[in-house]
Amino acid sequence: MTAEMPTRDYATRWGVCVFVGAAIWFAPRPEAIDLAGWRTLAVFAATIVGFLLRPLPMGPLTLVGLVVLAATESLSLAETMKGFAKPVVWLVVAAFLIAGAVKRTGLGERIALTLVARLGGSMRGLGYAICGSELLLGPVVPSNTARGGGIMSPIVASLARALDSTPERAPRRAGAYLALVGAHANLITAAMFLTGMAANPLVVEAADQHLGVTYTWLDWALAGAVPGLVGLALLPLLIGRLARPEMVDTAPAQAAAREALATRGAWSGAEKVMAGTFVLLIVLWSTGPVQQDLFQFRLSSTLVALIGVCVLFVTRADKWKDAVRDPGAWDALVWLGGLLAMAMALREHGVIDWFRGAMETRVAGMDGLTVAIVLALIYFYSMYGFSMLTGHITAFAAAFFTVAAAADAPAMVVVPLIAAFSNLCGCTTNYSTGPIVIYFGLGYVPAGHWFRVGFLVSLFHLAVWIGLGLLWWKVLGWW
Amino acid sequence: MTAEMPTRDYATRWGVCVFVGAAIWFAPRPEAIDLAGWRTLAVFAATIVGFLLRPLPMGPLTLVGLVVLAATESLSLAETMKGFAKPVVWLVVAAFLIAGAVKRTGLGERIALTLVARLGGSMRGLGYAICGSELLLGPVVPSNTARGGGIMSPIVASLARALDSTPERAPRRAGAYLALVGAHANLITAAMFLTGMAANPLVVEAADQHLGVTYTWLDWALAGAVPGLVGLALLPLLIGRLARPEMVDTAPAQAAAREALATRGAWSGAEKVMAGTFVLLIVLWSTGPVQQDLFQFRLSSTLVALIGVCVLFVTRADKWKDAVRDPGAWDALVWLGGLLAMAMALREHGVIDWFRGAMETRVAGMDGLTVAIVLALIYFYSMYGFSMLTGHITAFAAAFFTVAAAADAPAMVVVPLIAAFSNLCGCTTNYSTGPIVIYFGLGYVPAGHWFRVGFLVSLFHLAVWIGLGLLWWKVLGWW
Repeated sequence: MTAEMPTRDYATRWGVCVFVGAAIWFAPRPEAIDLAGWRTLAVFAATIVGFLLRPLPMGPLTLVGLVVLAATESLSLAETMKGFAKPVVWLVVAAFLIAGAVKRTGLGERIALTLVARLGGSMRGLGYAICGSELLLGPVVPSNTARGGGIMSPIVASLARALDSTPERAPRRAGAYLALVGAHANLITAAMFLTGMAANPLVVEAADQHLGVTYTWLDWALAGAVPGLVGLALLPLLIGRLARPEMVDTAPAQAAAREALATRGAWSGAEKVMAGTFVLLIVLWSTGPVQQDLFQFRLSSTLVALIGVCVLFVTRADKWKDAVRDPGAWDALVWLGGLLAMAMALREHGVIDWFRGAMETRVAGMDGLTVAIVLALIYFYSMYGFSMLTGHITAFAAAFFTVAAAADAPAMVVVPLIAAFSNLCGCTTNYSTGPIVIYFGLGYVPAGHWFRVGFLVSLFHLAVWIGLGLLWWKVLGWW
Repeated sequence: MTAEMPTRDYATRWGVCVFVGAAIWFAPRPEAIDLAGWRTLAVFAATIVGFLLRPLPMGPLTLVGLVVLAATESLSLAETMKGFAKPVVWLVVAAFLIAGAVKRTGLGERIALTLVARLGGSMRGLGYAICGSELLLGPVVPSNTARGGGIMSPIVASLARALDSTPERAPRRAGAYLALVGAHANLITAAMFLTGMAANPLVVEAADQHLGVTYTWLDWALAGAVPGLVGLALLPLLIGRLARPEMVDTAPAQAAAREALATRGAWSGAEKVMAGTFVLLIVLWSTGPVQQDLFQFRLSSTLVALIGVCVLFVTRADKWKDAVRDPGAWDALVWLGGLLAMAMALREHGVIDWFRGAMETRVAGMDGLTVAIVLALIYFYSMYGFSMLTGHITAFAAAFFTVAAAADAPAMVVVPLIAAFSNLCGCTTNYSTGPIVIYFGLGYVPAGHWFRVGFLVSLFHLAVWIGLGLLWWKVLGWW
C-alpha cells in the first residue's frame, strides 16, 4: 500500500492523522476520563490511523506520538518509556532474533525444503501443513507468541523464500498467503486451548469469580473442538480467496526442492545448534507446570526465549553483529513498546473504565442470549483499540462477565464465547499480539491489505463460533 | 583486540569471566548485602570482565548476565528489564540515530571537510578544533550526552572518514585519535561547568546539604577554569602519545578536502534540515531555564533529542528503514539498558551502602586534607563499578560529603574535587556515560585499548586537578 501511494499524498496522509487526533484532543471530554487519558486516546487513535495510512513507518509514527504526549506534558517522559521494559515486548524481540537465526543458520531453509518436497503438491497443502503444526504445538507451547513467533514464523518465512517469494520481489507469489495462514492459524489454536495463549487463564479466573463457572482445561478444549477444527480446516481455503497466491503450479518448485535437498550436504554445526535450541525452547515452554512442581519456580515465556537467544550467541551459531543489523526486532521494540505505553496510560487514566460503563448502559433491557452475543461482538471489535490481547483480556474479560451476570445472560454461552474471542479478535489488526506483529513484520503483506483481510477473517470467525459454536454448545447441553 | 585473538582462546576467555563471577557468587556474603545484591555483584563483575576479554560482544554478554540473574531467581525478570525504559538509555539511542542521520544526510561530511580544509594542517589542529568546540558548547548544552553524543561525535566520525580512516580499514590512521580526544574532551568540559552535565546540580545540592557549602555556577566555573583549560590544552598532546595517529602528513588530505569542498554542490534539502535540527537541538538544550520560566515546564534532554529524531523522520531528511538497520543504537540499548538494570539492583539490594560503610571505616583517624584527597581518589576509581556517571553521583556524592564532614576535611577542597571528579572519572571505562558509549561505539578503539588509555588519562587528570587544582584553589583562598 505504502509503495503504491505517490509521494505527493504525503501531506494528505499526515493531514488525516492529525485531523483525527485533533478532533478527539479538542472534543468535549467525558468527566470520567482525565486530561492525560483523553489526550492519550487522541494520540493513540491518530497513531492507529497512521498505521493504516502510513505517512511514515510504524516506528517513527509511534515515536512522534510519544513525543507529542511528553512534550505537551500529557504524560511524563517516564510514562511514555514504560513499554520498552515490558517482558512481552522482549518476548517479541527475542522471537525476531530467533527467527533471524533460523534463517542465517540455514535450518529454516532445510525444514522448508523438506516441507515443500513432501507436502508442496499445492499451496493449499503447505497451508494445511502450517495449520497442522500449529494444532500440534497449540496445547504444549503455552505462549502464542513463542509458538507463532518463535517457532512457526521463521519456518513460514523460509517456506516463502524456498518458493522464491520475497517481500521485495514477488511477495504475492506465495509469501503473503503463507504469512496470513500462519498468523490466523495461530489465533485459532490460541482460542482452542486454555494453554494456547499466556493470558487465557485470566479468562478462567474471571469466569469463576464473576459468573461462578469453573471452566476447566477440558471444558475449554471441548468448547473449541468443533468450531476450532472447522476453522482450521477452512482457513487455508478462505485465505486462498482473500490473498490468492500467484503461484499456481507448485510442481516445478517441488521438484527443485527435492533436488536441492538431495544435493544439500550434511547438517552444519550451526544448523544442529539451531535445531537443538528449538527442542530446548519447546521443552522449556511446555513444561511450565513441571518446573513449578520441581523448583517452585517456572521460567516465563520471555525468559525461555531469551535463554534460547543466549544459547545461539554463546555457541556462536548466530553472530551479534548480524543479529543487531536485522531490523525486525528493533522496529517492533520501538512501535510495540510505544503502543503498549499508550495502552497502559489509557487504562490508568480512566478511558477503559469509561468504555465499560458506556457498554453497561447499552445492553440494559435486552434478553439474556442477545446480551451474550452483543457483549461478545463488542468484546471482539473493541480489540481495535488495544495493542495486545493480554491487555484486552486484563481490561475487559472480568467487566464483560459482570455485565453478563447482571443481565442474566446464559453463562455457558458467555464464557466459551469470551474465551475464544479473547484470542480470535487478534485477527483485526497488525499489532494485536506477538506472532501477528512478527508475521506482519515479515513484510509480505502491506498494512492496508492486512487490515482488510483481518476484517473479513473476523466475519468468518463470528460465523463459525457464533453460528456453529452455539449449536455445538447446545448439543453439549451447556445452555 | 577481539579481532587479533585466535578463536581457540574463546573457551579461556569465557572461563575467566565465569571464574570471576563464580568466585564472588560463592564467596561468603557480607551481612549488609542481600542474596540478590550479592549475585548481581557477581554477574556485574563477570560482565565487566567480559567487556574487556570479549568472548562475545557487549550486547549478548549483557543478555547472558540478565538471563543468569532471572533464571536463578536472583532478580525478577521485570527487574532485569527495567533499564530498557530509562530515559538516559533513550537519550543515547536518540543520539545514535541523530549521528546516523548526520552521516546519511551528508552534512557530517560537509562540516568535516570544512574543518579539515581550515584546521587540518595537522592532526593536532583537528584535536584542538574538537576541544574548542566542546569548550564553546560546554556551558550551554547541559547534557554531556547531548553535547558529545548528539552533536560532536557525528562530526568527529565524519572527520575520521574524511581522512580515509574507518573502523574496518585503518582505524589508527586518524579515527582512534580523534575519537579518544572527543571522548575525553567531553568529560573535561562536563567537569568545568555546573551546566556541563545533567547530574552536576546533584553535587551542588549535596554540598549544600552535607557541608553547608553554597557552590554557585560561578564557583564551579572558577574552580575548573585553570585545571580545565590546562587539561584541554594538554589533551590533544597526551592522546597523541597514547594513541599516536598513523597519519602524519595531513597536507594531501587538506588539499583533497579543499578540492572536494569546491566541487561539492549546493546544500541538499536533507543537509539543510539536518543543520536546522542541530540548531533546534542546541537551542532547546540550552534554554531549559527560559522554558521553565515561560511554561513552568522544561523539555528534558532525552525529550529534546527525541524531538530532533522525529523532525528528521517527519521531514524525511532521514529514513526509518536506514536508521533501524544502523546497529549502534540497538547495540547500546541492549547492553547499556542491561547494565543499568544491574546497577539499579546493586543500589536497591545494599551493595552500594555496604561499600560506603567500608569506606567510612577506612578513612577514620586521618587528617583533614589527606581525607579529602583519599576520598576523592576512592570516589574517582569507584567509577569502575558503576555504569553511568549519574548513578555514581546519586549513589556516592552525598555519602562522600558526609564522611568528609565527619573527618573535618577542608570543605572547599572536597567540593571542587568531588564536583570535577564526578565527571572526569568517566575516563576509566567504555560504559561510563552516554558520549563515551557513543565514541567507543564508533568502533575505532578496541575495548582493551580504551581501558588502557582511560587509566593513563585518569592519572593525568589526578595530576592536573589535585596538583594544579589544589594550588589554584589555594590562590583563590578557598583553603
